[in-house]
Amino acid sequence: MAVIVVGSMAFDAIETPFGKVDRIIGGSGVYLAYTASNFVKPIQQISIIGEDFPQAELDDLSARGVQFEGVERVKGKKSFFWSGRYHLDMNTRDTLVTDLNVLADFNPVVPESYQGAEFLMLGNLDPVVQLKVIEQLRVRPKLIVMDTMNFWMEIALPGLVEVLKKVDVLMVNDSEARQLSGEFSLVKAARKIMAMGPEYLIIKKGEHGALLFHANEVFFAPALPLEDVFDPTGAGDTFAGGFIGHLAKTGDISFESMKTAIIVGSAMASYCVEQFGPNRLRTLTKSEIDSRIRQFVNLVNFDIELV
Amino acid sequence: MAVIVVGSMAFDAIETPFGKVDRIIGGSGVYLAYTASNFVKPIQQISIIGEDFPQAELDDLSARGVQFEGVERVKGKKSFFWSGRYHLDMNTRDTLVTDLNVLADFNPVVPESYQGAEFLMLGNLDPVVQLKVIEQLRVRPKLIVMDTMNFWMEIALPGLVEVLKKVDVLMVNDSEARQLSGEFSLVKAARKIMAMGPEYLIIKKGEHGALLFHANEVFFAPALPLEDVFDPTGAGDTFAGGFIGHLAKTGDISFESMKTAIIVGSAMASYCVEQFGPNRLRTLTKSEIDSRIRQFVNLVNFDIELV
Repeated sequence: MAVIVVGSMAFDAIETPFGKVDRIIGGSGVYLAYTASNFVKPIQQISIIGEDFPQAELDDLSARGVQFEGVERVKGKKSFFWSGRYHLDMNTRDTLVTDLNVLADFNPVVPESYQGAEFLMLGNLDPVVQLKVIEQLRVRPKLIVMDTMNFWMEIALPGLVEVLKKVDVLMVNDSEARQLSGEFSLVKAARKIMAMGPEYLIIKKGEHGALLFHANEVFFAPALPLEDVFDPTGAGDTFAGGFIGHLAKTGDISFESMKTAIIVGSAMASYCVEQFGPNRLRTLTKSEIDSRIRQFVNLVNFDIELV
Repeated sequence: MAVIVVGSMAFDAIETPFGKVDRIIGGSGVYLAYTASNFVKPIQQISIIGEDFPQAELDDLSARGVQFEGVERVKGKKSFFWSGRYHLDMNTRDTLVTDLNVLADFNPVVPESYQGAEFLMLGNLDPVVQLKVIEQLRVRPKLIVMDTMNFWMEIALPGLVEVLKKVDVLMVNDSEARQLSGEFSLVKAARKIMAMGPEYLIIKKGEHGALLFHANEVFFAPALPLEDVFDPTGAGDTFAGGFIGHLAKTGDISFESMKTAIIVGSAMASYCVEQFGPNRLRTLTKSEIDSRIRQFVNLVNFDIELV
């Protein structure tokens, strides 16, 4: 099963209470590719990079089964750059710098070789870009998953609403779900958002886990209680990469399968935050992934006879 | 198995975004008794009430198997009174009035008929009161569970630390765990608090569920995503009542059994918040409890083959 992932490939500068890094590879597309490639090949990337994006990084990802025919490299221009500083609680952050650079002119082109992909993961990007990718696919993928954020709700809501009508799964965090629906109760928010298009809604609550809604069903996946969170950058994209990676690997897009996919995504995200940027994902092994998933099973597993 | 519950029996005035009530039965002892009595009898109450506490309420509780020999009624004085207003998020509240009344002179006496009880639930009270109860028990109960709050950490920390050395399970919320330990990471906080005495620690996170720590193990129980929370008053005490009620019913105080007990407590708390004060608990049936527990099973249940 081929998975198309659409997202930024960028440089980040990150400051956390535990340290700082002035320039590290980042971007939703990078995290998605590093994560999903643990489960399925090929990963077909759609993105735009500047002259400064290191070939060595592309080579690393290629070796993991990531394809780049859909990635445009713009000569004489720089890659997207983001800089942020996390607060002590690691749940909130200030954006210090956002240099769009090449991302300002991103006009995605789906190469012929990507046609027929069965899974599409739309990382957090301008809804116009997300829509352009969907519209170029001649055969609708079996599953379209979309990530977005409050920024687009504020400046591009009509476009966002258009994309929502065309996707199967939306991922947002709890405050975004409240913002998009105008409802404080997440149960009510979920109902309103699913009425806007997506049959499945994932509400991410960071250290408090994630909820999966579908029709009248709900599933809750915890986050692993971690001793230290070193750098949360990319955790949401890593979660998404694990989620779609597991679904594509199994080919099963049922609600039951999505439950498991959320656990896989949570396990991957729990590794991501252990080091700066995507560094931990580079060295992650299959046995480490299995062991973390086993921890999740133990974390929530209980026996009950009705009392 | 007999369960001794120690807590206030009081009147509350409650204001939430959904309504207000000027005078309703409340207090940790009342919630503990209403909840635990669904699972086990007798519940042996230790508390202090004023002349104003309604006999009808005691009769209702008696019919559920709650004993009051350890409850002192003080003539010419009023019961404890608390008044609070919840914010829109229902997670935070302002205390408007605290009239200690009879609670100011609470000197608990354990009656002879309570000696030999196998379970002791110390509701949130002055640590001095909690300690006095423990010290009067000639045979140490099989399990001592203690609830407390930030207020006692601020004004009675040395006494609190003394009680901690004598209990098996401590229940606090996440901010209290951080305050008591001086650690932001809940994993680190748990380790420090368990080193202070209790072998088991439950950290309650309200709408985000609860964590159970023991040695190097951890279990996570979600809260049920609720459409509406009408009144959170007493939810923590109700959780505690379900927890100790289940353990006393089964007689099993293993980590595995505590996992289930936390699910039972969460189910009971999810009912408590549906109406003002303890009103919902009065009418709760066994089949309703079973059905809510089944919802918890569905909420977290997933199948996984390691990927």
